[in-house]
Amino acid sequence: MSDRQKVTVELGDRSYPIFIGHGLLNNLREINQYIAGKQILIITNDTVEPLYLETVKAALNNKFTVITHIIQDGERFKTLASIEQIYSALLENVCNRQVTLIALGGGVIGDMTGFAAATYQRGVNFIQIPTTLLAQVDSSVGGKTGVNHPLGKNMIGAFYQPRCVISDTSVLATLPDNELSAGLAEVIKCGVICDAEFFTWLERNIEALVSRAPEALAKAIRVSCEKKAQIVKMDEREHGLRATLNFGHTFGHAIEAGMGYGTWLHGEAVSVGMCMAANLSNKLGWLSVDDVSRIKSLCIKAGLPVDRPKDLSADDFLQYMQRDKKNTAAGIRLILLKSVGEAVVYDGIDTSLMQAVIEEG
Amino acid sequence: MSDRQKVTVELGDRSYPIFIGHGLLNNLREINQYIAGKQILIITNDTVEPLYLETVKAALNNKFTVITHIIQDGERFKTLASIEQIYSALLENVCNRQVTLIALGGGVIGDMTGFAAATYQRGVNFIQIPTTLLAQVDSSVGGKTGVNHPLGKNMIGAFYQPRCVISDTSVLATLPDNELSAGLAEVIKCGVICDAEFFTWLERNIEALVSRAPEALAKAIRVSCEKKAQIVKMDEREHGLRATLNFGHTFGHAIEAGMGYGTWLHGEAVSVGMCMAANLSNKLGWLSVDDVSRIKSLCIKAGLPVDRPKDLSADDFLQYMQRDKKNTAAGIRLILLKSVGEAVVYDGIDTSLMQAVIEEG
Repeated sequence: MSDRQKVTVELGDRSYPIFIGHGLLNNLREINQYIAGKQILIITNDTVEPLYLETVKAALNNKFTVITHIIQDGERFKTLASIEQIYSALLENVCNRQVTLIALGGGVIGDMTGFAAATYQRGVNFIQIPTTLLAQVDSSVGGKTGVNHPLGKNMIGAFYQPRCVISDTSVLATLPDNELSAGLAEVIKCGVICDAEFFTWLERNIEALVSRAPEALAKAIRVSCEKKAQIVKMDEREHGLRATLNFGHTFGHAIEAGMGYGTWLHGEAVSVGMCMAANLSNKLGWLSVDDVSRIKSLCIKAGLPVDRPKDLSADDFLQYMQRDKKNTAAGIRLILLKSVGEAVVYDGIDTSLMQAVIEEG
Repeated sequence: MSDRQKVTVELGDRSYPIFIGHGLLNNLREINQYIAGKQILIITNDTVEPLYLETVKAALNNKFTVITHIIQDGERFKTLASIEQIYSALLENVCNRQVTLIALGGGVIGDMTGFAAATYQRGVNFIQIPTTLLAQVDSSVGGKTGVNHPLGKNMIGAFYQPRCVISDTSVLATLPDNELSAGLAEVIKCGVICDAEFFTWLERNIEALVSRAPEALAKAIRVSCEKKAQIVKMDEREHGLRATLNFGHTFGHAIEAGMGYGTWLHGEAVSVGMCMAANLSNKLGWLSVDDVSRIKSLCIKAGLPVDRPKDLSADDFLQYMQRDKKNTAAGIRLILLKSVGEAVVYDGIDTSLMQAVIEEG
């Protein structure tokens, strides 16, 4: 793993490194030190399998007993039923507590593999090899694992940290345009909530990112991971600060659930959600009209949608938001902006204000 | 909660108290401080429901929104499907992260409620009100939660601690004899593995325990919880020492799995397992013949079986043992005895020796 950058997620005895670089998959030897036993289960999907599975297996086959488990690609397979199939694969292959699970894929594969690792025999090791920009910048940091329930996204899960993450920027070459854009949504979010300077850098480099310039991508991934790692270090279990990472997500989750999981990409829904949350922040007298349009404009340049799907009614939209995990007895909890680079947690928002934003959005 | 004893399980910010006493359910007010939000879901089974549900609800109804979820009684319902039903109940009632789950029942209810709490929205609070001796002395300490898989017992789960435990000895009055005996198996195990003095006390007081004398039961529960808490404090995630608590369990799990979950009570299987492990310890030249028969004799006086079911063949028995969670690349991991009061972890036992013990057992 040469020419790589390293970000360490600092969480005491659960700390782990993220390696970022071009072509890391071709030289996976250093991964060995993060594998405790002899057994490995690689979990991937039927889209990623033909692209990268053999490369990863080739690097491991000599030293370990490697088995693979393929899940169908798509958010709609992020279910407890898929997790049960992973348990069965582990048990049928008599995998013990020393087994290491490797997630080779995007966020769905990472979340499911992490949850299976968290709950198989009360916890085994896992490693993430994210193959989408979204997974590299977002789900690789912070240990959120889990699956969806018909009544809500990510309602079942655990906090569980990987042993290491390998983010190879060269795999982004095969990523469809809309998925690259979806990843950029989380990169933009990162600048919006906590780093005005990074946001300005993104405004200047958005064309380079969209055209997949390797150095620009590596920097965007590194900064996003560093920022998120700082926040997670201070608040691993989301008692406060970490909630700011959900900027745009309460609106976004309503879109994903309302339209049916998998219809909208997570990042696309977050993009619209960020624009709605920015609009609401402006209505509260915090964010300037200029900053609202800077956010919107950057999302558009990143190839992202900024208007909500009109076939989801405002009433339904609100109902889905009321089911969000972050909500408390005080009502809907939102992340809003004081300015670009400064997010706050806001409880018990006025419903009529919400309705106005949804109807405009 | 007067006339109560308190054992604290020391686990840093996950420490929690166990209250032990006669009639605690009639005065549950002090439980309030362990409930963060306004929502409570009580999970119980159809055997315990008519006996104690109203009492518990009455103590909580004024201050909280209490919903209940009833699961059919029995180890065979300790499945992921039952957990899914709990998630659905939580989501249908729009329970947020501040919800508290209360486990009212034996070990099956406790293990499932704990696992649901560990994985609903990545973790919510739970409280245990164990209604069997086994749950009071064993599953109330240490945070092991989970469910069975057709291919193995407790194969799916998490380490997750309750906020507090209420062990009311008066509920043991309604416990069937075989379940009281099954609880005593874990009490005996506790003396066998780490406290020769307590083992001697048990030999002297086994008749009082079997006839359900309240003071004897309260002492047996308290000492068992204290001993287990000490071990768990030193090794919460079972990297070494904690494994000694599994004395008799590798043999026992083979009986439970081999006969079909729920056919044998866990404690009954552990009793036979302890006798087999004692026998094996003797064959290794560690435990005296006299100590082997002291253990066997105490189990018999506690109303427990000491011989393995002969319709489970020795070969099948061994195969089930090879699937145990504790096993490593070195083979089957067993807990064996140097003497009464001193257990050790033993890896890679000779298979022919195992076979001899199984055939004799």
